[in-house]
Amino acid sequence: MSEKKENKSPGEFELIELLTKNINIYNPETIYGIGDDAAVLSFKNEQILVTNDVLIEGIHFDLAYVPLKHLGYKAAIVNFSDVYAMNANPKQLVVSMAVSNRFTANMLQELYAGIKLACDNYKVDLVGGDTSSSRSGMFLSLTAIGSAPPKEIVYRNTAKEGDYICVSGDLGAAYVGLHLLKRENEIFQADPSMQPVLEGYDYILQRQLKPEARADIHQYLKQKGIIPTAMIDVSDGLSSEILHICNDSGTGCKIFENKIPIAPETESMADELGLDPTVCALNGGEDYELLFTVSPDDYEKLTAEPQISIIGHISEKEEGTNLITIGGNVVPLHAKGWNAFAKANNS
Amino acid sequence: MSEKKENKSPGEFELIELLTKNINIYNPETIYGIGDDAAVLSFKNEQILVTNDVLIEGIHFDLAYVPLKHLGYKAAIVNFSDVYAMNANPKQLVVSMAVSNRFTANMLQELYAGIKLACDNYKVDLVGGDTSSSRSGMFLSLTAIGSAPPKEIVYRNTAKEGDYICVSGDLGAAYVGLHLLKRENEIFQADPSMQPVLEGYDYILQRQLKPEARADIHQYLKQKGIIPTAMIDVSDGLSSEILHICNDSGTGCKIFENKIPIAPETESMADELGLDPTVCALNGGEDYELLFTVSPDDYEKLTAEPQISIIGHISEKEEGTNLITIGGNVVPLHAKGWNAFAKANNS
Repeated sequence: MSEKKENKSPGEFELIELLTKNINIYNPETIYGIGDDAAVLSFKNEQILVTNDVLIEGIHFDLAYVPLKHLGYKAAIVNFSDVYAMNANPKQLVVSMAVSNRFTANMLQELYAGIKLACDNYKVDLVGGDTSSSRSGMFLSLTAIGSAPPKEIVYRNTAKEGDYICVSGDLGAAYVGLHLLKRENEIFQADPSMQPVLEGYDYILQRQLKPEARADIHQYLKQKGIIPTAMIDVSDGLSSEILHICNDSGTGCKIFENKIPIAPETESMADELGLDPTVCALNGGEDYELLFTVSPDDYEKLTAEPQISIIGHISEKEEGTNLITIGGNVVPLHAKGWNAFAKANNS
Repeated sequence: MSEKKENKSPGEFELIELLTKNINIYNPETIYGIGDDAAVLSFKNEQILVTNDVLIEGIHFDLAYVPLKHLGYKAAIVNFSDVYAMNANPKQLVVSMAVSNRFTANMLQELYAGIKLACDNYKVDLVGGDTSSSRSGMFLSLTAIGSAPPKEIVYRNTAKEGDYICVSGDLGAAYVGLHLLKRENEIFQADPSMQPVLEGYDYILQRQLKPEARADIHQYLKQKGIIPTAMIDVSDGLSSEILHICNDSGTGCKIFENKIPIAPETESMADELGLDPTVCALNGGEDYELLFTVSPDDYEKLTAEPQISIIGHISEKEEGTNLITIGGNVVPLHAKGWNAFAKANNS
């Protein structure tokens, strides 16, 4: 439902009203939001995108070092990013959650403040959801709905040999940011009198705690009349994502290590942590950049935008999916992304 | 996403492929289902309904007496029911879940078998979701998408004074079915050599374990050219649902106790449990019947259908929301529905 009031105690009604008040509706496609059995939407001549992500406490996030407002923001952003990755615009969001009674109304308001901020920043309408209790921990399931003209929708299985491979922004920062948060948290746990040292690490922390979806890149491509031949967002690592495009498209690829965009802050933190920055970019994940392939005809239009890097090209399937290292070696790419299942070890 | 393969281990890929193979697509509105960042849908001249329900182990279901296949079926049905309650047809379903490692692949296949059966029975396309691990228990979040011509969509806040109040099927059976399951489970827990006595209770058990959404009533209303003035599904009890309609519509109501449809099996089980059958119907919930109001002009068209009972009428707000008992007493209705939050008491 659209945050229906069924199966709820009076306390739940009040909580839902508290959480869902002052919601802004930005899109004419939203006919009716929260308050009935279902939200009602209307799209003219556009196709509709539906995407969903689950976030589980202790698996996907640790509230020891993730503020609730940031968690709410990020939970929304990861779904918006999936819609942009289809070359479409996110329009509505449905938020379901279950929380144990260690979460106060104030804490849930913080979470919702983050979700609402993301909705305001990206002009997405919060149209429904379900709120319940859990026996332990916090479960979030967000569903985003978007739209685009049918001819503009871009899948991941349509890359062609000879296409350029492009990525927005830079990679690996969110991963080293997470490592920094974990390190400082461990120091704090061992000795609570120690204060976390987070100054000077703003960029990588922001990339981990408050990532953005690349609405700007989606807009840029549209303005330039570029429709990528394939696209995916980098929620896992670059390596895993390019393998999705190649495997689903039946192609190979060549990625050049020296072309992978990595921020100086990421390089520096990786050094400090004893990690290889390229490995962080390839396998780290949570960057929410757009990885896309374009026809060679669109090459000129892309070079003008510093936020887009051309990192390689699509090859025949038989050539394999390879990284060409700075030293000139050819190394097969492997998906070594982030693994939610491996982190769960009790029932 | 549309059960995207990001953030997944190889084991997860295999699990998702196992769970989502052999999926039937029934609706031309489903352009692309599982396998990309988002599902792609296309609706012509229809508005879109989006509804979501969360089901948490230990709160909404107890696997001690709910088979996983039934759980999957019911989880889908409760969402379809919300779409029918808007006078629309469910078309697509997105399934998100998080499960601890006590759930084997076989168990999850059982769950999905139930979800798929519901999709097949109701001609709904499973188009995506997210599968993750949890640290404990099972968390399900299902989102159904439906559609209807804009003029046919029925809200709950549009009942008018003088409208008849109708309900489909019968009420209270799911509630007494749950009591029976709990009773037999307690007996079994106390003495595992005792076998549960469930023979002869088929109807009430089916109503609890394998409820159906009222696609047939939706179809009947459409065939007869009846558009209800307001509608809601009875996921909570009758009392709570009619109060939603009246409060949201700014009206009162009169419900006649002797008109409330209660199956003989429900009466009999309520007697056995020492419960008042009317109270079971008013406050029980999980019946997934349709409760709707119709203009007096449609009265004749309704009396021909034995699956629809006329149980009262909408009155002025000032007259209050009342039950007229068999003895002729006027009793104000109260929402005493099922309370998910009250059942959670540890973190």
